[in-house]
Amino acid sequence: MSQPFLISFKPEISLQESSEENQLVIQSPERKLTFKKIHPNLKNAISSLAEGNSTLSQLLDILQQGEEKYPILKFYTYLQKFSHLGWLCHSVVESQQPMAMAIPMGGNFQFSYQEITPELPYSLSRFAYSHQVGGKMVLESPLSQTKILLLSWKSSALINLLAKPQTWGEIVQQIPAIAPETVQQFLSLLLTTKMVSEVLPEGKIQEETNMNLMQWEFHDLLFHTRSRQGRHDAPYGGTYRFLGKIDPLPGVKPPMSEEVIKLEQPDISNLATTDVPFTQVLERRKSLREYGETPINKQQLGEFLYRTGRIKKTRQTERGELSERVYPSGGGIYELELYPLVHLCEGISAGLYHYCPQKHQLCRLSGATATVTTLLNHARITMGNASNPPQVLIILAARFQRLAWKYQSIAYGLLLKHVGVFYQTMYLVATAMDLAPCALGAGDSDLFTQALGLDYYTETSVGEFGLGSKK
Amino acid sequence: MSQPFLISFKPEISLQESSEENQLVIQSPERKLTFKKIHPNLKNAISSLAEGNSTLSQLLDILQQGEEKYPILKFYTYLQKFSHLGWLCHSVVESQQPMAMAIPMGGNFQFSYQEITPELPYSLSRFAYSHQVGGKMVLESPLSQTKILLLSWKSSALINLLAKPQTWGEIVQQIPAIAPETVQQFLSLLLTTKMVSEVLPEGKIQEETNMNLMQWEFHDLLFHTRSRQGRHDAPYGGTYRFLGKIDPLPGVKPPMSEEVIKLEQPDISNLATTDVPFTQVLERRKSLREYGETPINKQQLGEFLYRTGRIKKTRQTERGELSERVYPSGGGIYELELYPLVHLCEGISAGLYHYCPQKHQLCRLSGATATVTTLLNHARITMGNASNPPQVLIILAARFQRLAWKYQSIAYGLLLKHVGVFYQTMYLVATAMDLAPCALGAGDSDLFTQALGLDYYTETSVGEFGLGSKK
Repeated sequence: MSQPFLISFKPEISLQESSEENQLVIQSPERKLTFKKIHPNLKNAISSLAEGNSTLSQLLDILQQGEEKYPILKFYTYLQKFSHLGWLCHSVVESQQPMAMAIPMGGNFQFSYQEITPELPYSLSRFAYSHQVGGKMVLESPLSQTKILLLSWKSSALINLLAKPQTWGEIVQQIPAIAPETVQQFLSLLLTTKMVSEVLPEGKIQEETNMNLMQWEFHDLLFHTRSRQGRHDAPYGGTYRFLGKIDPLPGVKPPMSEEVIKLEQPDISNLATTDVPFTQVLERRKSLREYGETPINKQQLGEFLYRTGRIKKTRQTERGELSERVYPSGGGIYELELYPLVHLCEGISAGLYHYCPQKHQLCRLSGATATVTTLLNHARITMGNASNPPQVLIILAARFQRLAWKYQSIAYGLLLKHVGVFYQTMYLVATAMDLAPCALGAGDSDLFTQALGLDYYTETSVGEFGLGSKK
Repeated sequence: MSQPFLISFKPEISLQESSEENQLVIQSPERKLTFKKIHPNLKNAISSLAEGNSTLSQLLDILQQGEEKYPILKFYTYLQKFSHLGWLCHSVVESQQPMAMAIPMGGNFQFSYQEITPELPYSLSRFAYSHQVGGKMVLESPLSQTKILLLSWKSSALINLLAKPQTWGEIVQQIPAIAPETVQQFLSLLLTTKMVSEVLPEGKIQEETNMNLMQWEFHDLLFHTRSRQGRHDAPYGGTYRFLGKIDPLPGVKPPMSEEVIKLEQPDISNLATTDVPFTQVLERRKSLREYGETPINKQQLGEFLYRTGRIKKTRQTERGELSERVYPSGGGIYELELYPLVHLCEGISAGLYHYCPQKHQLCRLSGATATVTTLLNHARITMGNASNPPQVLIILAARFQRLAWKYQSIAYGLLLKHVGVFYQTMYLVATAMDLAPCALGAGDSDLFTQALGLDYYTETSVGEFGLGSKK
């Protein structure tokens, strides 16, 4: 079976020739390969890969031209090397127009060509998704190391049909505008890159019978593969891609209202010598969902917020304002904001507040409105349908752009780790203070932004924590 | 401007008539509306909504039939109520065949019809994505409260063209098989549901000029909107959807090798009274990326793992084995596994190990192979290109299906919070033990599974933590 695809180098790969020494250099962003005294047929074949207008058999023809033929097996070794480096793209062409191009993401990759069987039905993986990237439609999947540019409406039309099991013949009948052999090539490209699978006799595809894959939801696996390294080619880590284009957000959020409640400060240096032994706190920590009759009071809430969330120091850098706080946070950026929703707290009236970690004070944002009451009731239900809502619900919101301004690919993943770090910090401080702590696993971010009239994309809730006096 | 769409109730809404009292009940999974002594024209219009074969103007015609007409304004009030409840779908039909149907997800929703201007270019949001759900192609976007079923290949073909800015006229020329007025209707549906936007004179769409949206990556915003409540209609929380279908994984992972290293246990009850005060540990915590000349030793590593990761108790339940450990974890499920990658540790040879939290022992999995060395070097680079890699790199992997077996929509979000919770636990224990801790923000999950020969979808790395003796 010969591969019907056009084979080409990735667009970011360039060739440099020097005719004197008959030398050819293939350069990718990561590495280069140098061919000295290159055989003219090999040079022509490699040039053809750069132009991207030949199939495998046409490349082999080039090697066989003239008197001095180039050994095909040796060429295969090079081709395998290029493939392993993730340099080779495979394209389907229709009426002289490119229809789809498969581009490997990252190296350590093998394009193991699989051809469809015309009589068998195939269907699209539920993990495959197409979206617009830089003005082009792209098909990707967390199961695949390859992305496919869908360069014609015909590609998307064919993929639409594959949402249900279809044989090649069935597809050809539904969209007569595409040549049957092109459909076959395109389907084989989708099969090779794990976008579609053969439908098994019981009517399912392999991923539907795999008990591990069955338990992955689409958004979870997509996010995992994109926020960790290994199978994508996107920039990763602290890339500062908006530096000089967008100003970073200030390190400390400006006061959100003029109705300010100053909070008392505990004596940290005293606590540092007199506090409960660390191991006792860690070992005693427990989620408590029942509260005492005498609610938590203002002094306790103040101490709790000071010991968990206050800013110890800020510093201006060329890349924005950073701070030091009690809990760790990637790059000293600290994107999390604390919104205590007070249900019962002696000395503080019910309502929604924002905690200023620098001035150690609360800004009152609203009373116990209908939305605020709904948020509180959601929390009660999330805490295993507890008999009472938490006396204070600490809502964690994120000024997301603080993180995304620096970090790429990992920003939201980091954010959720920060939420966890802060959960444990609150658990331990509450335990040391003999309060009742409970982290929540879910919450409504749209409702939270509605309650405060915030913009969902600028700052919204990412975590919730119940607090109160111990029963 | 009249809306050209067919209007219908969502498929999960049913009508019950009782002819005696001339009563009609509209029932959704969440609530029902009862109409008593209903006007026959209103009943016909509502039945027509259930059948889904009328446009707005056809519905108004139904209200005007016969002698006793039904007031249009009153009908509009009901229509608004249905819309607000998220009950109304809007469909585009082509040659008697449904081409696309917009279905609201959740309530508190308004379908504010916007019509395209034929002369202006439009283009697809980079947040919109289409994928297969239950055998149908669906277009969704974290910017939209509506999902669109793409019921014909023509819909996907049109969306493909919109990856680049296009006017209605340009689109019509490229796919002549679709009637121009249908294209116009479909584009208006995409505009109304925020899937496409008008291209501004500078060549960008609104989301490309919005500094907040610009900083959201596709996978981050998709994941945020799907793992938090507010703008999707998927089941959420502890749904146990695989109960009775797939067995839950055991609570404790069976030994991974026969080469076992027993670890010493610290005296926890002694530490509970003699340990450093909690506040001192919390306030002193700091990321340290430089290590002492005398490396960490086996006794310290054993104490560290015991104090952070050991199992205190397990219990069998009808819904699988749960455990109690030092750090909190949703539902007592504990999906995280610890893999110490030892670079320098007195008493333990270099290599990759698995920690058994029940038997408090290490299973040796491999020596310092090339892949293991690459993992270690990645960690060094991630720690701000430190001069030395960590003496011990604690790799956190997740047995993902432990969580996903119980939790829906939130499983991976919970997992990352657990990683954060465990990071802070390790930070504090390391500080109390006078060791050098540093959490890492990134890692290669594919490389990790390669190093161990694990299945990527069953168990892979989700966090990394550097540890060593203090300088």
